[in-house]
Amino acid sequence: MADPIRVTVWNEFIHERTDDRVKAIYPDGMHKLIADYLNAQEGIAARMASLEQPEQGLPDEILDSTDVLIWWGHEEVRDDLVAKVHKRVLQGMGLIPLHSAHYSKIFRRVLGTECSLKWREAGEKERLWNLEPSHPITQGIGEYFELPCAEMYGEPFDIPTPDKLLFISWFQGGEVFRSGCCWERSNGRIFYFRPGHETYPIYHDDTVKRVIANAVRWAAPRRWGTHACPKSPPLEELPGYDG
Amino acid sequence: MADPIRVTVWNEFIHERTDDRVKAIYPDGMHKLIADYLNAQEGIAARMASLEQPEQGLPDEILDSTDVLIWWGHEEVRDDLVAKVHKRVLQGMGLIPLHSAHYSKIFRRVLGTECSLKWREAGEKERLWNLEPSHPITQGIGEYFELPCAEMYGEPFDIPTPDKLLFISWFQGGEVFRSGCCWERSNGRIFYFRPGHETYPIYHDDTVKRVIANAVRWAAPRRWGTHACPKSPPLEELPGYDG
Amino acid sequence: MADPIRVTVWNEFIHERTDDRVKAIYPDGMHKLIADYLNAQEGIAARMASLEQPEQGLPDEILDSTDVLIWWGHEEVRDDLVAKVHKRVLQGMGLIPLHSAHYSKIFRRVLGTECSLKWREAGEKERLWNLEPSHPITQGIGEYFELPCAEMYGEPFDIPTPDKLLFISWFQGGEVFRSGCCWERSNGRIFYFRPGHETYPIYHDDTVKRVIANAVRWAAPRRWGTHACPKSPPLEELPGYDG
Amino acid sequence: MADPIRVTVWNEFIHERTDDRVKAIYPDGMHKLIADYLNAQEGIAARMASLEQPEQGLPDEILDSTDVLIWWGHEEVRDDLVAKVHKRVLQGMGLIPLHSAHYSKIFRRVLGTECSLKWREAGEKERLWNLEPSHPITQGIGEYFELPCAEMYGEPFDIPTPDKLLFISWFQGGEVFRSGCCWERSNGRIFYFRPGHETYPIYHDDTVKRVIANAVRWAAPRRWGTHACPKSPPLEELPGYDG
Repeated sequence: MADPIRVTVWNEFIHERTDDRVKAIYPDGMHKLIADYLNAQEGIAARMASLEQPEQGLPDEILDSTDVLIWWGHEEVRDDLVAKVHKRVLQGMGLIPLHSAHYSKIFRRVLGTECSLKWREAGEKERLWNLEPSHPITQGIGEYFELPCAEMYGEPFDIPTPDKLLFISWFQGGEVFRSGCCWERSNGRIFYFRPGHETYPIYHDDTVKRVIANAVRWAAPRRWGTHACPKSPPLEELPGYDG
Repeated sequence: MADPIRVTVWNEFIHERTDDRVKAIYPDGMHKLIADYLNAQEGIAARMASLEQPEQGLPDEILDSTDVLIWWGHEEVRDDLVAKVHKRVLQGMGLIPLHSAHYSKIFRRVLGTECSLKWREAGEKERLWNLEPSHPITQGIGEYFELPCAEMYGEPFDIPTPDKLLFISWFQGGEVFRSGCCWERSNGRIFYFRPGHETYPIYHDDTVKRVIANAVRWAAPRRWGTHACPKSPPLEELPGYDG
Repeated sequence: MADPIRVTVWNEFIHERTDDRVKAIYPDGMHKLIADYLNAQEGIAARMASLEQPEQGLPDEILDSTDVLIWWGHEEVRDDLVAKVHKRVLQGMGLIPLHSAHYSKIFRRVLGTECSLKWREAGEKERLWNLEPSHPITQGIGEYFELPCAEMYGEPFDIPTPDKLLFISWFQGGEVFRSGCCWERSNGRIFYFRPGHETYPIYHDDTVKRVIANAVRWAAPRRWGTHACPKSPPLEELPGYDG
Repeated sequence: MADPIRVTVWNEFIHERTDDRVKAIYPDGMHKLIADYLNAQEGIAARMASLEQPEQGLPDEILDSTDVLIWWGHEEVRDDLVAKVHKRVLQGMGLIPLHSAHYSKIFRRVLGTECSLKWREAGEKERLWNLEPSHPITQGIGEYFELPCAEMYGEPFDIPTPDKLLFISWFQGGEVFRSGCCWERSNGRIFYFRPGHETYPIYHDDTVKRVIANAVRWAAPRRWGTHACPKSPPLEELPGYDG
C-alpha cells in the first residue's frame, strides 16, 4: 500500500478565537473541519497548523514533511517563511489556497500577480458550475453545486490564465468568478478554490470538502526536484572545447 | 502621430568596464548598441540605465516614464527596486529580459519559478528556429537565424509554460532551449529572449536587434491599470442588503 | 494609409425572411446591421453574404478576398465549402463565429470539439463581465455590459481551453458562460462571441457591435501562409547524406 | 484490482509487408512490438489492428471496447471511420498518434490544424530532451534519451499550442522539433509522440516503448461522456417563464 499523502492544513485561526459569530460556527477553527474530513479519507493523513504557533505553525520539520499544504489566511506571515514555502512548492509540494488566501503572500509570490478581486459580504447565494467534468478534482461533484450563503468574489480576478479552469461561480447579486483554478509551477501543483468564509458555515458543506480532498490527491507530489544552474559539458564534439 | 514608445535599456554594465575582452566588443556597454538600434526605429525613444547610477539607474522619474524595460543583468539589484519594477509591469509596462536576466530577481519574481537552466561557455554555433511565423515578434526573421559563437543555455528551463513559444534554439554541442517566450501578467507583457553574452558580439547582430525592436512594439502598454480589492455593491436586488 | 480590412459578414438569413417576429427586428437581416456598423468604422470594408446566394454566398472570389469572416448560422453549409473556409482560416483569415455559430460546421471543424452547451430561450437578463481589460477586443467596453433580453447559453461549453478568455456571462436564470473566447490556429485567429439571437434585438446594441469591430481588428491577418511538408536538406554536415 | 486499460495498437501495416528493408526490422509489423511491450506491463491489455482487416481494423465492437488508441499511419482511412474515432476521443478515449500519424486524418481532425512539418530521411542522430521531469509520461526517462538513427522532423510543426510540451528533439542535421505534446479535448486526452520510422528499428528501443506505456496510463479515460445541447429550465425564478 502506498504511503498516505501528508497534508498540513494551515489556518490563520484568528477570527475563530476573537469573533463570537465565527467561534459559534467553527469552535476549533476552520482547519479542524477540513483536517477531520481528510483524515476520514483513505490514503490521506492530515494535521493542523496555525499562525500563533511557534515558527508561525510551520517549523522546518513540519514543512519538510508536508506533501500538500492547504492555506487559509490573509497577510501576516513572515517573508522568510513565505520564501521557504515557495521553494518547497517549486520542489514538488502541492499548494491549495482557500478563499481569503487569494491575497496571501504565498499565493501572490507563486503566481507573480496581484490576485485582486471584487468582494461583498452579503450572505448571498453562490452556484458553482463544473466546467470540466472529467478532471480529477471534479469527480463526484455533478454539473453544479450551491452554497446558500456566501461572501461574493467578483471578476476581474488578477491571475495568470489558469492551466485549467474548473469552476465558475454565479452570484445572486450579479457577479461571476473563476472559483477553481489549476496551475503547474516547476514540480508543484497549485489549486485555488474560492469557497470559504469565516462567518458562514462553508466548511460544513460536504461538497466543498470533497473538492478539497480531490484536490489533495491531484496536487500530491509526483516527483521532488531541486533546481540548479549546472555548467554542462557538450554531448557532441566541440572543436577546441577544453571544459 | 502617436507618441513614441519610451524604452529604458537597463544593463548591469560591469563586465564591459572590468573585463578587457568584453570592453573590446562593447566599449560603451551592450545597452548602448541596443539603444542606438532602437532609436533608429520609427516610433521608439530609448535611453540607457545601469547599476552603478544613482538609485541603481531606476529612480522613480525614470521608471514612471518607461513603457518598456529591457533588462540585462544578474542578481545585484535591491529588493525594494525589484518590487517597484514588478508593480509597474503588472500595471502595464512591458518587460524584455535578455540572456543572463533569466536569473534576475525581477524575472523570477514576475514568473514565480526558479528559471534555472543548463549552460556552457564554449563559443559554439546556435540556430534559432522560428515556430510562429505570423507572430508580431518574428516579422522579418525568416524560418531560422544563426549565431556562430554563443554561450549555450539548455533545457530544462524552469519557467511556467509560455503563453506563446516563438523560438527554439539548436546548439552545436547537442542541447535545445526555448529561446523566445511570451507571457502576459495582469496588464503587462513579458518577452524573454535568450541571445546575448558579454564575451561574444551578439548585440552587433542585426537579426537579434530586430527581434528586440519587434518585441518592444509587442510589449508596449495597451492600457495602464492599478489593482485593488474594492468592496462592491450588488447589481441585482439582494433582500436585506444594507451595504 | 493601410488598406482596409476586408470583412465578409455571412448570415444564414433564414429566420429574418420566414419568421415575422424576427423580420420585425431585422428586416434586412442581422448581417446588415453588423456590416453597416463596420462600414462606419475607419479602416474596415464590410460586405454581406448569405446561404441562399450562389455558392452559398461564398464563391472563391469572395472567400479569397476576405480578411475576416463573421459567421452567423447553424448547420446547412456544404462540406466542401466548410473545408475551403477552414483552409483559409489556417492560411491567415480571421474567423468570428457569433452566437448560434457555436454549432456551425466551420467552428467545430476548426476547434475539433463538439462545442455543445445548455440553452434556454426565455428573454432573460445577461451581464457580460470583462476579464481582460487590457485586451484589444475589450477596449472601450468597461468592466461589464448588460443585455436586458437574451437567450441563455450555459456551461459546460465543450471547447478546447481558450488561449484567452475575455468575457464570462451571468444569466438571470442562474447559469454562467464563457462568452468571449480567443484561439490561434496556424496563421489564423478565431474569436467566438456569444451575444446575438434572432428573436431579440441584440445587434442593435452598440456595445455588442463595438466588440465585433474590435475583434475584426484583432483577427485581421498578420501574415498569409500556406502549409506544406517539404523534404529539407541538412544544415549541418551529415556524413553519407546524398539527398 | 482495477480493470486493465484496453489498448488497440492500430498500424497501417503496409511497408512491413511490401518493403524488404522494413520487413527485416519488423517482420510482424511495428504494432506487434508495441503491443507485446504493453502486454508485459501490469494493468494494460493490448491488441493489434491494421488497415487491411475488415472495417479497416476498427469495427464498432473493437472501437467501442478501446480505452486508448495508438495510431501509426498516413492517409488511407475512410472518412466515416475517422468521424467515429474522433467522436470516441471526445467521449473519453485516449489517442496516441505516433510519428507519421502527424499527417493522419484523425490527428488533424482532432486538432483542426494542418500538422505539417519539415522532414528528411537520412538516418541521423536524434536526442530528445525531457522538459517536464515531473510529468507522468516522462517518469523513468531521465534528462534526455538518444536515437542513433532517425528520420528528421523539423519545425515549424503546425499544431495548436500544446497544453504541455514534454520533449524537444535535437537533430544532428541542425533542426529541432516538439516531439512530445499533450492536449485535452472534451473528455479525451491526446499525446503525440514523434519517434518511429518504418526503416529504422525505433520500436525496438525500450525508452521509446516506456514513454508509450506511460502515455497509455496518462491517456486512459477518466470519465466517459456524451455531448448534447439540452434545453435547460432556469434555476432561479424567471418572471413569465413557462418552459
